[in-house]
Parts: sequence; structure tokens; C-alpha cells
Amino acid sequence: MRMKSKAVLYFVLLHLLFAGLATGDVRREINIPDILDYKTLKCDLHTHTVFSDGLVWPTVRVDEAWREGLDAVSISDHIEYQPHKKDVPTNHNRPYEIALSPAKQKNILLVRGAELTRDTPPGHFNATFLSDITPLDTNELFDAVKAADKQGGFIFWNHPGWKPEAKGWYDFHTQLYSSKLLHGIEVANGDTYYPEAHQWCLEKNLTMMGNSDVHQPVANCEPSPENHRTMTLVFAKERSLDALKAALVEGRTVVWYKNQLIGRTEYLDALFKAAVRIAKPHHKQNNTVWFEVKNCSDIDIELEKPGGNPADKLLLPANSTIVMKTNIDSKTNRAKLSYTASNFLIAPDKGLPVNIMVSIQ
Amino acid sequence: MRMKSKAVLYFVLLHLLFAGLATGDVRREINIPDILDYKTLKCDLHTHTVFSDGLVWPTVRVDEAWREGLDAVSISDHIEYQPHKKDVPTNHNRPYEIALSPAKQKNILLVRGAELTRDTPPGHFNATFLSDITPLDTNELFDAVKAADKQGGFIFWNHPGWKPEAKGWYDFHTQLYSSKLLHGIEVANGDTYYPEAHQWCLEKNLTMMGNSDVHQPVANCEPSPENHRTMTLVFAKERSLDALKAALVEGRTVVWYKNQLIGRTEYLDALFKAAVRIAKPHHKQNNTVWFEVKNCSDIDIELEKPGGNPADKLLLPANSTIVMKTNIDSKTNRAKLSYTASNFLIAPDKGLPVNIMVSIQ
Amino acid sequence: MRMKSKAVLYFVLLHLLFAGLATGDVRREINIPDILDYKTLKCDLHTHTVFSDGLVWPTVRVDEAWREGLDAVSISDHIEYQPHKKDVPTNHNRPYEIALSPAKQKNILLVRGAELTRDTPPGHFNATFLSDITPLDTNELFDAVKAADKQGGFIFWNHPGWKPEAKGWYDFHTQLYSSKLLHGIEVANGDTYYPEAHQWCLEKNLTMMGNSDVHQPVANCEPSPENHRTMTLVFAKERSLDALKAALVEGRTVVWYKNQLIGRTEYLDALFKAAVRIAKPHHKQNNTVWFEVKNCSDIDIELEKPGGNPADKLLLPANSTIVMKTNIDSKTNRAKLSYTASNFLIAPDKGLPVNIMVSIQ
Amino acid sequence: MRMKSKAVLYFVLLHLLFAGLATGDVRREINIPDILDYKTLKCDLHTHTVFSDGLVWPTVRVDEAWREGLDAVSISDHIEYQPHKKDVPTNHNRPYEIALSPAKQKNILLVRGAELTRDTPPGHFNATFLSDITPLDTNELFDAVKAADKQGGFIFWNHPGWKPEAKGWYDFHTQLYSSKLLHGIEVANGDTYYPEAHQWCLEKNLTMMGNSDVHQPVANCEPSPENHRTMTLVFAKERSLDALKAALVEGRTVVWYKNQLIGRTEYLDALFKAAVRIAKPHHKQNNTVWFEVKNCSDIDIELEKPGGNPADKLLLPANSTIVMKTNIDSKTNRAKLSYTASNFLIAPDKGLPVNIMVSIQ
Repeated sequence: MRMKSKAVLYFVLLHLLFAGLATGDVRREINIPDILDYKTLKCDLHTHTVFSDGLVWPTVRVDEAWREGLDAVSISDHIEYQPHKKDVPTNHNRPYEIALSPAKQKNILLVRGAELTRDTPPGHFNATFLSDITPLDTNELFDAVKAADKQGGFIFWNHPGWKPEAKGWYDFHTQLYSSKLLHGIEVANGDTYYPEAHQWCLEKNLTMMGNSDVHQPVANCEPSPENHRTMTLVFAKERSLDALKAALVEGRTVVWYKNQLIGRTEYLDALFKAAVRIAKPHHKQNNTVWFEVKNCSDIDIELEKPGGNPADKLLLPANSTIVMKTNIDSKTNRAKLSYTASNFLIAPDKGLPVNIMVSIQ
Repeated sequence: MRMKSKAVLYFVLLHLLFAGLATGDVRREINIPDILDYKTLKCDLHTHTVFSDGLVWPTVRVDEAWREGLDAVSISDHIEYQPHKKDVPTNHNRPYEIALSPAKQKNILLVRGAELTRDTPPGHFNATFLSDITPLDTNELFDAVKAADKQGGFIFWNHPGWKPEAKGWYDFHTQLYSSKLLHGIEVANGDTYYPEAHQWCLEKNLTMMGNSDVHQPVANCEPSPENHRTMTLVFAKERSLDALKAALVEGRTVVWYKNQLIGRTEYLDALFKAAVRIAKPHHKQNNTVWFEVKNCSDIDIELEKPGGNPADKLLLPANSTIVMKTNIDSKTNRAKLSYTASNFLIAPDKGLPVNIMVSIQ
Repeated sequence: MRMKSKAVLYFVLLHLLFAGLATGDVRREINIPDILDYKTLKCDLHTHTVFSDGLVWPTVRVDEAWREGLDAVSISDHIEYQPHKKDVPTNHNRPYEIALSPAKQKNILLVRGAELTRDTPPGHFNATFLSDITPLDTNELFDAVKAADKQGGFIFWNHPGWKPEAKGWYDFHTQLYSSKLLHGIEVANGDTYYPEAHQWCLEKNLTMMGNSDVHQPVANCEPSPENHRTMTLVFAKERSLDALKAALVEGRTVVWYKNQLIGRTEYLDALFKAAVRIAKPHHKQNNTVWFEVKNCSDIDIELEKPGGNPADKLLLPANSTIVMKTNIDSKTNRAKLSYTASNFLIAPDKGLPVNIMVSIQ
Repeated sequence: MRMKSKAVLYFVLLHLLFAGLATGDVRREINIPDILDYKTLKCDLHTHTVFSDGLVWPTVRVDEAWREGLDAVSISDHIEYQPHKKDVPTNHNRPYEIALSPAKQKNILLVRGAELTRDTPPGHFNATFLSDITPLDTNELFDAVKAADKQGGFIFWNHPGWKPEAKGWYDFHTQLYSSKLLHGIEVANGDTYYPEAHQWCLEKNLTMMGNSDVHQPVANCEPSPENHRTMTLVFAKERSLDALKAALVEGRTVVWYKNQLIGRTEYLDALFKAAVRIAKPHHKQNNTVWFEVKNCSDIDIELEKPGGNPADKLLLPANSTIVMKTNIDSKTNRAKLSYTASNFLIAPDKGLPVNIMVSIQ
């Protein structure tokens, strides 16, 4: 039974919701702030459907994106690997075509994409922002990448550390890179982080990407700071496909992976400042002041004293407020607390230096 | 990326689990007791996949069943309604064939089934325990049912109150019933309960069925007494397809729908007695005794005083213990507390009478 | 062991938090918007401690208030009912004195209060914003109320329907009211709502109060729209004790009880408008438009069509977004959807009329 | 308001529960199996109330114990440290006296205890199973311990690594030990584990204890394998105070701390075997068999290959089933999988060796 009209579905949904169900066509926004006059778009540009080796119908990827608070999603089925081919004959553009109408209705930016799938090395590459996937179905990987580029595609290397025995930067990657056909790398894919890729992006000025590479249905449970979809935060001039692509091309991204933000210092610093609000002290006794520190984001922010011991760790839990106390300088009426935000990674193993400034003036 | 071996998948899974993820290939048993020397099999014989109007690949239905603690599942795609036909050409037996190997590995009883789909009335019917679905693809509904019966199929009427404007028992149902081609009715489908169907099953000695009719992926969140998959509890001689079918034919079922159990008195009474354990009093003061009452099931059991007021309600929460106190008869050293288990429905709007017997001897 | 310094406690707390504990000295703000240029203060002016018949030390009430996102709390121990007197000798002002320092450190507005406790009728009354509780320990209830008034106290009638057999408005209430010694009534207390009290407040222009009357420790679990502390939302010019009292005196309150807001039309209307954000349509097809409706509050907002059937119910879940669609008038390019917000109670059983206005201009 | 009769309270409770509240006077049993013909009693013999530096009334400790599934609890307020003395005058036996009646009604074994509180070293000691606490209020610590022993008290050293700068085994401990006045040590206290204490217990044949040392109200949230009350599992001949004490004296304990079980090999081995059920293989293909492994306990059991790499980790999640597969020896029709249960600690940093035996005969 499913020949219900959309209208009926809404009421069924409501019925479900009144009955206390947590899931349904309800969107929970992700709380990560806009920065630097950009919109912070939450994006997953690497997902699969039954059209390659995924396990869901394309519309499910849009429904999930909507519910989870994403702004943009790409279905990027494998061109060369189609284990369901016998039952779902090859038609590279169909996932996009099927998902487009629900995406429009749900205000999701749908990016036409595909995964170029070769043995490792060189491995897999996603071509996104395409107008037609068919020309990418070529014998030679390089030809496929060129076909994507011809359409203005944004191309990134997927899960570069996937096969430990064959991982690394090979000649093919150099060839792509020097031909300006490689625009980004997945620094995180699903539940794996690739520090080498992180380093390569910094050194070669490539865009850092984080994606789910989801094949299963995404579980609808409550996400948490540690347990959410791996995604790319893209700092775009507006919420549109064009602005999204422009931001990716210019490398304006941060990867949100488990409870870590991975990216360039300028964006991480801006995210920290936008997320953490330090109130004026509300209480003073002698030289000690008490003040509230509010974390307006879905990230548990972990602060460490530079060179300090573990006991000096300070947690600013997501979407919460804590009270801190400190001694104030009696002349300046100020205090400056210096920390490292250890889960804001400006390089592999390197946290972002931050200050908490307190003033009673 | 998904060409991981099964072995690798296990370790990935473990990694996920260590990371605190609640989902994965982990099974949580449903806590509803065996009764009357039967195994209580948890069954959902009505689900859909991309092969009709569902949104998941057939193996997903097996994975979900495993995780949720089901014993048996049937994929019952529509024969006549296939909106994805353009991309997934008709092949009625494929969902079963695709899901069979994972079902064997995961110890799930997979029932080959199909949904016969006609306008209401007469509506939709599920034919299950088939050996080949193709012969059911006929012009006349009656012919399809006969084809199912020829294979020894178990046939039930789906969501009989679905279209309120055209619901009811029509001549076609009488025709099926008198030809012994109708074996059960869905008393509950998804989030809807059909009291008329409940009554029909009682009057006509038909098997009460409850199924999810799920089209979407099933959410992986924590189920609760109020919010779980609608299913049929089948009391079978053993955990096998043959025993399951035999039990269905003989009507040994109870429907678990939201926080209600719907079925015949004998099975509901046995479930109550198996689930509720009344301990000897652990404390006595004058004539008052205190004793523990433990509910060993996933059902919140709601007790009401017959003819009593709402304040006399008593809840035995799922998988929990409460302390009750009562006055004991000083001669017999006994007390008998009579209630109605208002969510054990022996007929529409009619709860099961139960006693809580206390003795200090 | 507890002689840890505060500093050590912080690190212990952090340790706990890193370990994934949900509790601790962490505040989760309540998401209910400010309105009409007032701050919306979240207040519970009726709680108990071991100094009367409560079960916690006074500082616990401050800790709980902080964690749960309250702005103000009053400990209002019974003056006349002190079952722990043998172990905790009477000292009416001690709960306030003990809790004051932690309240200052945690930025909680602590209101000195007490519960005047007499048989019903006339029942119990809370006197709040006192400077000294001792003078209220009198033989005659009226004298106690006068003593409170002399200190500028704000006085309200507690749980007016508590004893069903003796509830109602009696001469004593008239006497208090006409002497301007009764300023408010608890419209909700704990898990009970009193529609008669709601009506009296409307008719007699008394301040509507909602309080927890908590005696046990407050559970630290995740609150939900249906399951949170009963409290009074007070619309104050600033976050201070003076402004809080002034707002109470002027009746600027709404009671938050389960998933209901109870108050005067002007405040409920302002809360609805501040909480519900209707976006410009993001998609149009012929005359149909799709648009997002975001609920920026912790309340599940329930909308019903006036005179409509249950199927027309619409839920705007707390802190979530839904997509609605509607037909637009082709001349005006507008649509107006009229609903009743059935859980915004402007009178007993009477929801707030609201409109959802859509425009594509 | 709280002068409700117990009877009324029950119904209020029920009302709360129907309303979906998670807390209340409902007990959730802890799922850790009985072993070796002993009852596995769940015990916390170190808690505080307002009578020393705790923050709750004594009855709260009983209510919490009941709800959390404990069998026994001791209130062990400091004799020498009473910061609330001004408001709650010293009366060492009162916490026990106050809590006794609710303990009897709720079937909780209440152990009369006290904490002897001296500077570190030698630190704090709990004396439990006392008949009168007053004689322990002495100048000399040794005299207090002797007074406890005279009453047949069971005495253990609390949080032996609490003050890192002064921790260690001192002459006083030797004096106690050689006088047979030291019977156990807290191997875990709250959220801290003391590996040195673990070693001392093994070497000196002292009873391993784990306790909460809770001062705050215990949060009522859902416990999890990682986040539950630290406690001692005591293997007693029956559920009685006498049997509990006898088991403690004989050292029949395992400490449950976070997701670790800490104890002697024989008890940990028995717990593993009682918790883990290995089913006959349900599927076979060539030499590979698939079989279910069920973990019937609240512990996430972590298995590692001895000397193996991290990828070989295997998790048996609490109260769940997984499917394993392995190759079977074609001659013996058996397989033996050897692991270390890394969170069953038979010594500091040393897991329990375990085998998973599979047979298709």
C-alpha cells in the first residue's frame, strides 16, 4: 500500500509524530554557525544507491539529507562497479533524474555526480557538478576525468588511504594535479580520517572534503557530536548550486568528522569565534570572577592548556553553557586564558590556538 | 567504496561499535516470552522493496529483521503496481532470490510472498509461503489467489480499512472465504488498527495478522513499547518455515501493535502469565504485605480495576519491577487482586481479565 | 570524600563529560523566545528541601536550576509542616542563606520564599520575594499573609484543586483578594493543571503561575516537550530580581505545563509569532508552492483547522522544520492558512487562533 | 504539597508513567548473571547524605538503589567531617534509622555503615555491618577500627589513590592488615580506578570493592555499559545481609567499573561463561559455518586476539546477539577461537583468556 497522495502522507506523518515517533519528514537543522559573511552549507557529495552498490532508492538520499539538516547532497554511484546491473540496468543519469523533483520540493541542492572507480592505485575519484554522466563512462580514467572537466566538473580523490597496502600519492595523481584536474581530496570518508590527505591538501592547496560514502540507509537516530554523518562544511556566498561550486573551487571548506573539525586556520578560527560566546562576568569576589561560556554549536569543543597536563582539559559541551572562574588582573581588570582547541585541527595532530578574554570593564 | 570483504566489514562494524554507534549488524532480541510449549516467533509478512514501490534493496529487509530481533520476514512486493518498472524491470521472484543468502547467514526465516493489488474493494491481499510468484500475475484476482493456493500459499487480506470510503466486507471476500482461500486478515497494518477486522477474525475463525507494510528503510533507533514495528507473534512448534506456516494456518497468533496485544483469550492469557512474575511478599506489617511484581516483557502492561475509575490504573512497565502492597486476609493468608489488562485486547475495546494472587504461606 | 577544591571539581566534571556522562554542571538553555522587548525568564517559584518535607539540600535546587536552563528559582519550604524537624531544627531562612552563594556563582536569581500551609480550604499559599521569613510563622494565616505583604511579598495560591473533595474558591480567598493580598494562582503544579484556576486568573486579573513543587531530586534526563519541569515564563524588562517581581505583579506570565502554554492571548500570540518562522516559498509548480516552516522553540506546536477533523492536524515539532505546500491565489500571489494552535491555551479548552501567511511576491 | 498517602502516590506515579516519564518508583534489574550457585548481589557500600557532606535525605539512597536494580546499599556518612552540622546536628545512627523502613518496603538490604575520615595517609576507611556507629567516634583512628571490629564490622580502605601526592601503602595500613582489621580495598571509587589497589588485593588476599561514593543525587537517566554506578558484585549464598557479609569476608566479589569487570580469575571466568551463549551453527557452506553469539549481560564484552592487532577486536555488545563465522576443521567438525576478554581484568592491564568453541556435531 503506498498509493497515497502526498497530502495524505503529510497527515500520516503527523499522526506518527503525535504518536511520539522520532523520525519522519521533519528536519533538524545542524547548529554550526555562518562565518565571514558566508553561509555555512552542510554537504555530503559522496553517496550511493541501488544504481551501483548502494541499498536505497535515490529519493531516500534526498529524504535523509532533508531530515538531517544537510543543504546539499550528491548521489555519486560507481560508473564501473554495478553489482545490481542484472536487475537495475545501467543508466548513469537516472539517480539524479529520479531524485531531482523531491530535492526541489524539499529545498535540497542536488549535485549530479558519479564515482570513477579504478583499482588502487590510483583508486576512486568523484566527479561532481556534471551535466551528463554518460561521457564519463570511458576506458581510460584520464579520459573520464577530462570529460568531467569539460563539463566544469569539480573532481576529488576519494578515501585516499582506503587500501593500506597500496596507498600513497602516485604518478597518476601528479598527472591529474599538474593538469589542474584534481580539485580536492577526501580528508575523511565515513568513519576514517586520512592525515596524509590532510597534509597534501595543505601543501598542494587542494580542497578538503569529508563525505559519508554511505551505501546503507542512514540510521535516523539522534545524531550526537561524536556520531553524525561525516560531511563538508562549505562557506558559500549564498545557498545555491553555483555558489556552492564556487566555494569548493576556492577551497572554502572545513571537514566535520566525528567530533573534529578539520580545515584551514582562518575558517576554524572563525568557527570557534562564532560558536563560543563569552559573557561579561556575572559575579565577583575579591579578584575572582565567574562568567558564562556558551557553545552555540553541535560540536563538543575540547580545550587544552598548551603544554599542559590532561587535568587542565576543559570541555565546552555542544549547545550548552558552563561557568568558568578566573582571577582578574587588578590593574587591567582583564584576564586572558590561552588554550588549544584540540579538536579543531589546523594540521594533522595540531589544534587551533584560541584565547578566552575576560573583562569587567 | 564497498568492495570490502565480509571479514573487513566485521571489523569496520566493531570499530563503529567501539565508537559508540548504536546501529550496525547487532541484534537486539525482542523480549516476549514463549508460551504453551510453543516458540513465540516474531514475524513481519508484509514489506516492500525497490522491486515494487519500496525504497530499499531486498537485503535491507533481512538486515533490518536481524537487527530488530525478528525471526521471520516476507518481502511482498506488489505484483501489479511497479512504479520503478522503467528502472527495475519486472521479475517477481528476484527480491526473494536476492535476500535468500543473507537470510540464511543471519538465521532469518525468509518467506517468499507477493501482494495482489486491486482497487478497493476488494483491495489488497498477501500471498505467502509461495514457491513461485510468476503464476500469480493474472488478470483476475480470483485466479491469482487460486494460483497461490495451489502452491500451498497462506493468504491474508491487507489493511482492510485502508480506504474509509470503500471499506467493508464485500461479496468477493465472502467468495474467497467460502472457498477457503482466505486464511487471515491484517488486524493492524503499520500504525493503523482495524477493529472490524479484529471482529471478523473472531467470528470467522481467521488468523489475526499484524505487519509493518514498510516501504521506507526502517529507522534503527531504539524501539520502545509504544514505538516498534507492528508484527505478528506466531506460536510455532519450532523455529522453522514449516512450523511457522502450520501455526499460521491454525490461527496461533497475537498481533503486537503499538503497546497493544491483540488476539484470542488463550494466547493473551498465556502471555500475561508468562510475562508477569509475582514474588512472595518480602515485607509484612500487621495485615499489610509488600511484594514485587516483575514484568518480563517489552510491553508496558496496563491494568485497570473492572468498572473502576482512572485513578485505579496500575502500570507494569516493560522489563521492570514495581512494589505493590495490599492487605492480606488474616484467615487464608491470601489476597486476590482482580484487574483488566486493558492493552491485551481479546476483542475490540475489551481487555483481558487477570488476577494477581498473593500468598504468605 | 568530597573535600575537593572547586578547581578539582571542574576537572572531575570534565573528565565525566569526556567519558560521555550526560549530567554535570553543564547548562542547557531552554529555547523559548523573548517577546515584546521583554526577556523571557524561566522560573520555578515553588520547590522544597530537607528543611521542610523535601529530600535535597538547598544547594541542589540551584544546581538543578542551572543545569535545566532556569533563570530564577525559589525554595519555598513549608513553615508549618516540617517532618524532618527532629533532625533539621526549624530555621526558616536557612535554605535561602545556604543556597545564596552558589546561586550568585551560577547566575541564578534566587527568590526568598516560604509556603504557608493550612488545611484545605483555604489550602497552601506561597509568599515570595521576602526579606525575612520568620515573621510569617504566625497562628493566623491572614496574619502571615499580611506579614509577607508588609515585606513587599508576591503571594500566590498553590495547587488550588489539590483536594478534590474540598476544592473551590472560599470566603478566605475573597478576603485575601479584596484586600489585594492575593496576586496569583498556580494554574499548574507539577503534573496537574487546574482549569478553574485558569478561569479565575482570567476573570480576576490574577497572575498565572506554574511551578514544579518538587520534593525529590529533579531527574537529570533529557527533557522533552512533553516531559519537562512545570514552570512560569515571566516577561521581564531585564534579568534581575526587581524586574522579575515587577513582571509578576503586572501579570506578564505564561505557564509552561507539559506540552501546553497557558496564558493571556497577547503573550501567547507573541510567543507563536516569535517561535514560528515561515520562509518564502522555495519551489513552485503551477499554482502550488512549497515553503519551509521552522519552529524555533522547545514546544511541539499543534495546529488544528478550526472546526476541522482530526486528519487536518498539523504538527510543528520543537526545534525543527517542516515543508508545507499550498495553492496560491493567482491574483494576489498569496495564501492564508488559518489554524488554531490547540496547545496554546488562551482559556480552558480554547486554543489560540493563528495564521500562516504565504506570499511569493 | 506532599501529604499524600502512599496509596495516592502510587497512582500519581502511574499517571506519571503513562505520561511517558522515565523516572519513578520503577526498578530496572541489572542484567549480570548469577554464577557458581551464588546469587550475584549488586552492592554499593559507600554513599553520603545530608548527615555528613552529601546532598540528599537518607531515604533517597534507598529509592535510588531500588530504581537502579541494586540489592544492597550502605549509607556511610563521615563521622569526623560534617559541614552541615550547624543545621543537621550530629547523630551518627540517624541516616540508617531514617532509611530502614523504606528499605524494608522496597526489599533493599540496608547496611549500617560509616566513613572514618582522617588525613591522607592513612586516609579514609569504611566500616560496614555495624550495630551502632557512635562508639566509632574516637580520637584515635585505630580505636575506631577496633570498635567496628568488635561489632563484627567489615572494614575497607576507601579510594586509596585519592591524593596522588600522598598515596601508597603506609605503616598504618600494615598495622591494620596484620591485626586482621583491614578486610578490603576500594579498587574503584566513582569514576576512578586504582591499579595499585587491585594489585594489593591480589597479593594480600583482600576483598576488592567498588563503590560510588555518591554525594549528589544519582541521575536517573538510562544507564549504559560505560556509564553506570560503580558497584561491587558480591557472590552470596542467598539474598540476605548475613550471606552478603559472609561473601565479603570470603572475598567473593567482582568490581563493576565503567565497562570493566575487575576481580579474581575464577569469578570473571564464571561471569564470562554465564553471560556468553554460543549457539550451534545455523548455516554452513563448504567449511565455513555461521553461528550466533549472544551476550546476556549489561556489559559490552571486548575480545582481542592474544598478541593480535587492533583490527582483530571483536565486540559482543550488551544484551545483544551477533553472527560470527569461522572455518571448521573438517576432521573434528570443530573450531576453537581463542581471545582475551580485555575488559575482564584479572590483574592490572591483564584480560581474561577465553575460548569460543564451535561444533557442528
